[in-house]
Amino acid sequence: MSNNVLRLAILTFVLALSSLDAAYSQEKKSTDWVNPFIGSTNYGTTNPGAIVPQGMVSVVPFNVSGSASNKWDKDNQWWSTPYSWDNHFFTGYSHVNLSGVGCPELGVILLMPTTGKVEASNKVYGSPMTEQKASPGFYSNHLEKYDITTEVTASARVGLSKFKFPEGQSNILLDLGTGLTNESGAALRIVNNREIEGWRMTGTFCYNDGTERPVYFVARFSKPAKSFGAWKKMPQMTAESAWSSTDSAFKFYPEFQAQMAGDSIGAYMTFDTESNEEVLVKVAVSYVSIENARQNMEVEMPGFNFEQTRAAAKTNWEEALSRVSVKGGTDDQKTIFYTALYHMHIHPNVINDVNGQYPLMESYGIGEVKEGDRYTVFSLWDTYRNFHPLMSLIYPEQQLDMVRSMIAMYEESGWLPKWELNSTETHVMEGDPAIPVIVDTYLRGLTDFDTESVYEAMYKSATTEGAQNKLRPDIDDYLAKGYVPYTTPFDNSVSHALEYYIADWNLAQFAKALGKDADYKRFLAQSLRYKEYYDKDEFQMIRPRMADGSFYKDFDPKQGENFEPSPGFHEGNAYQYTFCVPHDIKGLMKLMGGKKKFTKKLQGIFDDGHYDVANEPDIHYPWLFNYVKGEEWRTQKEVSRLLNEHYKNAPGGIPGNDDCGTLSAWAVYSMMGFYPVCPGNTDYSIAQPAFDEVKIELDQNFYPGKELIIRTKGDGEYIRKINKDGKKLNRYFINHKELVSGGVLEIEK
Amino acid sequence: MSNNVLRLAILTFVLALSSLDAAYSQEKKSTDWVNPFIGSTNYGTTNPGAIVPQGMVSVVPFNVSGSASNKWDKDNQWWSTPYSWDNHFFTGYSHVNLSGVGCPELGVILLMPTTGKVEASNKVYGSPMTEQKASPGFYSNHLEKYDITTEVTASARVGLSKFKFPEGQSNILLDLGTGLTNESGAALRIVNNREIEGWRMTGTFCYNDGTERPVYFVARFSKPAKSFGAWKKMPQMTAESAWSSTDSAFKFYPEFQAQMAGDSIGAYMTFDTESNEEVLVKVAVSYVSIENARQNMEVEMPGFNFEQTRAAAKTNWEEALSRVSVKGGTDDQKTIFYTALYHMHIHPNVINDVNGQYPLMESYGIGEVKEGDRYTVFSLWDTYRNFHPLMSLIYPEQQLDMVRSMIAMYEESGWLPKWELNSTETHVMEGDPAIPVIVDTYLRGLTDFDTESVYEAMYKSATTEGAQNKLRPDIDDYLAKGYVPYTTPFDNSVSHALEYYIADWNLAQFAKALGKDADYKRFLAQSLRYKEYYDKDEFQMIRPRMADGSFYKDFDPKQGENFEPSPGFHEGNAYQYTFCVPHDIKGLMKLMGGKKKFTKKLQGIFDDGHYDVANEPDIHYPWLFNYVKGEEWRTQKEVSRLLNEHYKNAPGGIPGNDDCGTLSAWAVYSMMGFYPVCPGNTDYSIAQPAFDEVKIELDQNFYPGKELIIRTKGDGEYIRKINKDGKKLNRYFINHKELVSGGVLEIEK
Repeated sequence: MSNNVLRLAILTFVLALSSLDAAYSQEKKSTDWVNPFIGSTNYGTTNPGAIVPQGMVSVVPFNVSGSASNKWDKDNQWWSTPYSWDNHFFTGYSHVNLSGVGCPELGVILLMPTTGKVEASNKVYGSPMTEQKASPGFYSNHLEKYDITTEVTASARVGLSKFKFPEGQSNILLDLGTGLTNESGAALRIVNNREIEGWRMTGTFCYNDGTERPVYFVARFSKPAKSFGAWKKMPQMTAESAWSSTDSAFKFYPEFQAQMAGDSIGAYMTFDTESNEEVLVKVAVSYVSIENARQNMEVEMPGFNFEQTRAAAKTNWEEALSRVSVKGGTDDQKTIFYTALYHMHIHPNVINDVNGQYPLMESYGIGEVKEGDRYTVFSLWDTYRNFHPLMSLIYPEQQLDMVRSMIAMYEESGWLPKWELNSTETHVMEGDPAIPVIVDTYLRGLTDFDTESVYEAMYKSATTEGAQNKLRPDIDDYLAKGYVPYTTPFDNSVSHALEYYIADWNLAQFAKALGKDADYKRFLAQSLRYKEYYDKDEFQMIRPRMADGSFYKDFDPKQGENFEPSPGFHEGNAYQYTFCVPHDIKGLMKLMGGKKKFTKKLQGIFDDGHYDVANEPDIHYPWLFNYVKGEEWRTQKEVSRLLNEHYKNAPGGIPGNDDCGTLSAWAVYSMMGFYPVCPGNTDYSIAQPAFDEVKIELDQNFYPGKELIIRTKGDGEYIRKINKDGKKLNRYFINHKELVSGGVLEIEK
Repeated sequence: MSNNVLRLAILTFVLALSSLDAAYSQEKKSTDWVNPFIGSTNYGTTNPGAIVPQGMVSVVPFNVSGSASNKWDKDNQWWSTPYSWDNHFFTGYSHVNLSGVGCPELGVILLMPTTGKVEASNKVYGSPMTEQKASPGFYSNHLEKYDITTEVTASARVGLSKFKFPEGQSNILLDLGTGLTNESGAALRIVNNREIEGWRMTGTFCYNDGTERPVYFVARFSKPAKSFGAWKKMPQMTAESAWSSTDSAFKFYPEFQAQMAGDSIGAYMTFDTESNEEVLVKVAVSYVSIENARQNMEVEMPGFNFEQTRAAAKTNWEEALSRVSVKGGTDDQKTIFYTALYHMHIHPNVINDVNGQYPLMESYGIGEVKEGDRYTVFSLWDTYRNFHPLMSLIYPEQQLDMVRSMIAMYEESGWLPKWELNSTETHVMEGDPAIPVIVDTYLRGLTDFDTESVYEAMYKSATTEGAQNKLRPDIDDYLAKGYVPYTTPFDNSVSHALEYYIADWNLAQFAKALGKDADYKRFLAQSLRYKEYYDKDEFQMIRPRMADGSFYKDFDPKQGENFEPSPGFHEGNAYQYTFCVPHDIKGLMKLMGGKKKFTKKLQGIFDDGHYDVANEPDIHYPWLFNYVKGEEWRTQKEVSRLLNEHYKNAPGGIPGNDDCGTLSAWAVYSMMGFYPVCPGNTDYSIAQPAFDEVKIELDQNFYPGKELIIRTKGDGEYIRKINKDGKKLNRYFINHKELVSGGVLEIEK
């Protein structure tokens, strides 16, 4: 049995007590500061659905399909989230979802309450929704069309919905056709008048084909249905349409109890309800089997106690969020902070069932975790930069489980993950980001994993030549020339290479730590070959380079703004990539001709509007002024400005895709007053915190300190002095080790 | 375990011996006279696929989809058979099929061998086929595109295919998208490199919706595949097509081993084959579960012995067909005769698995047969007329199992079947035809079934008023007025009522036999109300009648020729229905004004081209002249003429839909020289046989006689004298009882 389940069981046990606590306490808890609607528009792609920390299930109000009233609709454009704050046409609760991503996937197994005649098309059965409320582990709304109040909560692998119906015929639809994923196909069986089981195909994240797999489910109803049935959207007929009443239409199968399969199918349960009668439905999922989904339900949620489940979810969240407490700051700042911390606990999420089983990486076999949890949804190109260092600091146990999950993926598939989703490598984005994640974790003192095995994995992707290198497609040129040449219109050659340099620099640090000196030198040298891209003469910037060694001629450093295609750069332009050598900022400074030129160039990017706050390549830029003595105020200024301008207590309060918690991690770090400029370098760059005091409870199973306090003193504009435990720091950096020894970091303004 | 399986086991056991027998015998066996291609064009809708008598599986070359070279294509028109002799574009062997029906259904689970690149669209992977050969239990062809020779055979529930490949990459596709049915949806799992399991939805026979159900299968390969995968036809995308490479296309899932579902899916196994290497595949089916399909395979066909399976199938057929032996006649006549007898053993077919389980009628529950077999595919509006009387005569054991199956359907669903298909009532055609089938069986001496229960069933459909009467939708008018009035344009009111009269006359006979005299009188009286339709004054024909008692005004007795819509009549016109009161031919004669007018009217139908040889309402017409003394030669003349003109040893050798063996039963009876004019009346009408001698082995478990010989003497044009066991018959009728006492029926010309 996994740790999560044990934890949940204990939490459920002590629940009565905690709820009483909450009732009598006047003080606001961490969870009270969470606004789950933050990020649910403005392309933040988070959602207000009910979920527990790292839950496999989230119960999300799906409102992005089927209505002309929708501002954003998956059927009209590239669309990557099951929910938008701007839309109000609700078509059911989806039970597996991604949060903060830029590609469509999951958003399936929709549960929808209706009244009157059963309809199968979401265009017809959908309803306007109002009265939305959300808090950690809870979401509620009112369906105008039906006068139904819905409330949802969840445990790790089971969603629980409560529908309050008016008097008359009420229905609960299970729509396996509608979904965010572009994969299709589902099967179901109505087991009896209280249970439906089945599975829904998923896959094709970012329109890539990988190891597509079904998500299995069991849905159980608190009340026996009076009648039930299935439906299927029938394919268009060629010649025989005249004789068929269901050509291209939804066909109903009343009282159906056999197996049903198709591209777009569903099932319904119908009830006679009294006024305000509540019917509850729990939906358990598994990526292994229907049997496992049923076991997940029986272990995690044997009954239908909504309030208890909701309270357990909240306690779960409180436990996670209260690792950090803050004093001072405005209510909005507290809300932004705790919501960002909340968003860091959506992904990576648990994928193993309560019995420990999970789908093996890149295969259809079944693995079993021995201890801890198996995690999935690793958006590593994003999260290696700050999310995982922050996990290491505050949640070392989970971070180690995540690293162990990544190593297991290597053992199962032969390669570390890059953008892993439900045990499938989606090949999204570039680089070799598992290396910095794992090395950084190791160097922060979390070393309890198989270092030899993982070194072998890293060495493999850093050195394997040819097409068999699944992580570094341009390895041959990179090794031979030291850079990836620009060869194809709008290729991402420079972006690829910049990521390889960071990975190789991390690998060098790991080699050094393991006493592999030759490797250290080799990979360190390789990591500095980024200089090949530096155009000293004309632009003084990183610039795509051709196979013959010349620079790309028609270079425009602005090209690539706003996610336009850009020669050599992926999701960015030369401004946003030039300082993307966090492992050698001093070397870059030298290339640029010294501190002044470096500072001027960096400040110019902010001043001239070249900085992209919504994507990762330049996410560390504001923190780089600390490398120049006397210019640290610029870091403080830019960090404050970006927080104030772009992070808000509002649905549009995240400036772009949250990227599985990466923008949120940026906000959490920035509001605490420090930031990990370069993974693998355990120094933190310092700026002023947003709060008078931040207290981090350190996990003493991993760190010597009990708690770390970051205290702000004075009311000057910029930092004047920094003390650690009363001793003055001579620089605007502090090492991870100094922080995890606990004590007080005092920042005087 | 069912009788069929026991029989099969024994047959397999004694097989070596029988094959030796065959090899050394110079004499042609019954099976050698079967030409399975007869009926495979000219709308006969039979096929040359491999099947054992009453087999659940038939392995049929599917060639009616995907090519412009097809003369007949299911995608261009109403089409009801998986095979046409006129087509040569082969797209695989379908494993569950209907034979001799007029509506599309089944024709699914296609197995297709190819070479080179794997293709999923039947338009692309299909191949021209040549060198077709077929005999009972065996079919073979050559695929021109791939230079593959295919051979197939079957046991009751398992198809066995043998593919002889050229050297190189060879593939076997399992296409669950292509099919004859208009139902869609399938699921599969590639269990390992030698096995695929899954299910395919079926239903919508004649475009009706009923208890649609999946057919489950397990496919096992004789050789482990080098690689394998699945495919799915992707639905059309709405907005995101630009980013997807598989929009509206077949998407492949290499090495897929999870569950796959969709409207159109398939799987493939790929092999490296040497020149002429044979790979075998066995496909077991079940209508209960995948587990049962696997058990069917393990019990019926544990190995991959093609020759043994083929020989067992042939022996099985020989056992069935050799119940009748013939002398004299031409080779073509023998072939027509034995092929007709062969076609009587396709449907009804067994639906129970080897463990006795089967799907309950009109429900998703599972039943279990205690003894005998459970039969399905009851096209009763057709087969009650002659097929079942013939089964009673020659195959009483099967006929009793069929009757018991029908009674069980009543017990399971509350109603006797009308057009039952795989435990679903399809509501095709009209009347209450289970009554004459069962009463006729009973009156022929086969009484070993629950008569009280079945009488209750018959009484229910004959008397239940209102919409709850599932078999007789117009029961209220029928009971109140004695006829069904013409109310809706082109309704089938007269056809409905004529069938009810026949059913009620049978019910009367049954009541009489059971000593229920009041019921006897009641139903007999009702059965004679057909006279309400007789238009004495104007047309001297059966004519639609209005609710107010007047006849339908715009009456045209020819309207309804060639299956055109006809007011009041279903699939026919007034000519073809006027004599369709077989239970009261003498009464009809009186209505018509006597023997002469009767004879003239009847003969006129033949002479003026109003007789439809291809459908059932007038199928008994040629035999009616025997009711008029001195006119019997006309029966002999018309029967001979129809046989000669319409039944041939050629693919077009059945004049229309075989109707699950009904036209074939007509041919068998007619060629033996007698015919059951009216079910429930156990008299046979006599004409001259096509052979010098016909010998029927009687089943002594049911009948007193050991064998019945029908011998023809003389070379006159018409019959001069008929003797039974040396005693002259005084009429051109002989009773069933006289036949089953054995002996010799001598017909002197």
